[in-house]
Amino acid sequence: MRILGIDPGLRVTGFGVIEQTGQRLAYVTSGVIRTADGDLPSRLGTIFAGIATLIREHSPDQSAIEKVFVNVNPQSTLLLGQARGAAICGLVAGGVPVAEYTALQLKQAVVGYGRATKEQMQEMVGRLLNLPGLPGTDAADALGMAICHAHGGSALGTLGGMAPSLAKKGLRVRRGRLVG
Amino acid sequence: MRILGIDPGLRVTGFGVIEQTGQRLAYVTSGVIRTADGDLPSRLGTIFAGIATLIREHSPDQSAIEKVFVNVNPQSTLLLGQARGAAICGLVAGGVPVAEYTALQLKQAVVGYGRATKEQMQEMVGRLLNLPGLPGTDAADALGMAICHAHGGSALGTLGGMAPSLAKKGLRVRRGRLVG
Repeated sequence: MRILGIDPGLRVTGFGVIEQTGQRLAYVTSGVIRTADGDLPSRLGTIFAGIATLIREHSPDQSAIEKVFVNVNPQSTLLLGQARGAAICGLVAGGVPVAEYTALQLKQAVVGYGRATKEQMQEMVGRLLNLPGLPGTDAADALGMAICHAHGGSALGTLGGMAPSLAKKGLRVRRGRLVG
Repeated sequence: MRILGIDPGLRVTGFGVIEQTGQRLAYVTSGVIRTADGDLPSRLGTIFAGIATLIREHSPDQSAIEKVFVNVNPQSTLLLGQARGAAICGLVAGGVPVAEYTALQLKQAVVGYGRATKEQMQEMVGRLLNLPGLPGTDAADALGMAICHAHGGSALGTLGGMAPSLAKKGLRVRRGRLVG
């Protein structure tokens, strides 16, 4: 089963595709859809078209997107909402079922710790997918979403038990080559 | 030129299509896209598909959508943003150029008075398009958006001058048959 994870944003939308075979997870691709400055409809169109291209190229069976939260800045909340709406439309229009998980579910599923940092997320995603280096933060969240969905939105067995202790010890992040 | 006006909302998205021939405006159709309760992706998909159907059936050359404002409830702002994003994606995916106007521009262009009430908007839209009855409030805002765009987002000449005085007098609204 192929899973497309999405970390939505107006300026940068992260994406990550993984392949699940039984318990095994394999990295397929990851990266970001960037929107240039310009009018809002064009930017939303870029996100929508980017998702459509990903679906055409990688044929995901399912997708997972982060449930965003209201921002301290209401105007940012409105812009983020529109970007997320565009990404979801791209998925729905492409016929891919969409699951939603909160940032808390994402962190608990991947790092095993709800207050995990961006760096811990990058590190764990890199380990779980045997990446040769660290994924970028946007791609890491998107790949993490896909991993979270692969595990039904719940904490991973062994890793879920291992990670909190790593987190408490202040998991050291190797600065490596960026993937995606 | 055919113009599709949209008043976006998660539960109810109003639409109105008008035909502009020189200075003359003619009513084509209006109504609402309703989304049933259900998961957010399905509801956004319903809005997106509804817009796609409107474009297929009425071939608008241009479109205009209301610029929404942040709500007192941040969660509502987030939901409205996503609904608006879905509607804009439907327009962009259908190849229809999208213009954006604020509620203030809409009211000034159609009623000639920035603080016009819903009833005044229904009344003026009904008059400007020679409707046999009053349009519903959602359809009226959407038709008003299309009228606003037909007039370049600025106040109508004669009507723009006439309406503020009507508004001050407390424009009486005939309760008529609902259109759309």
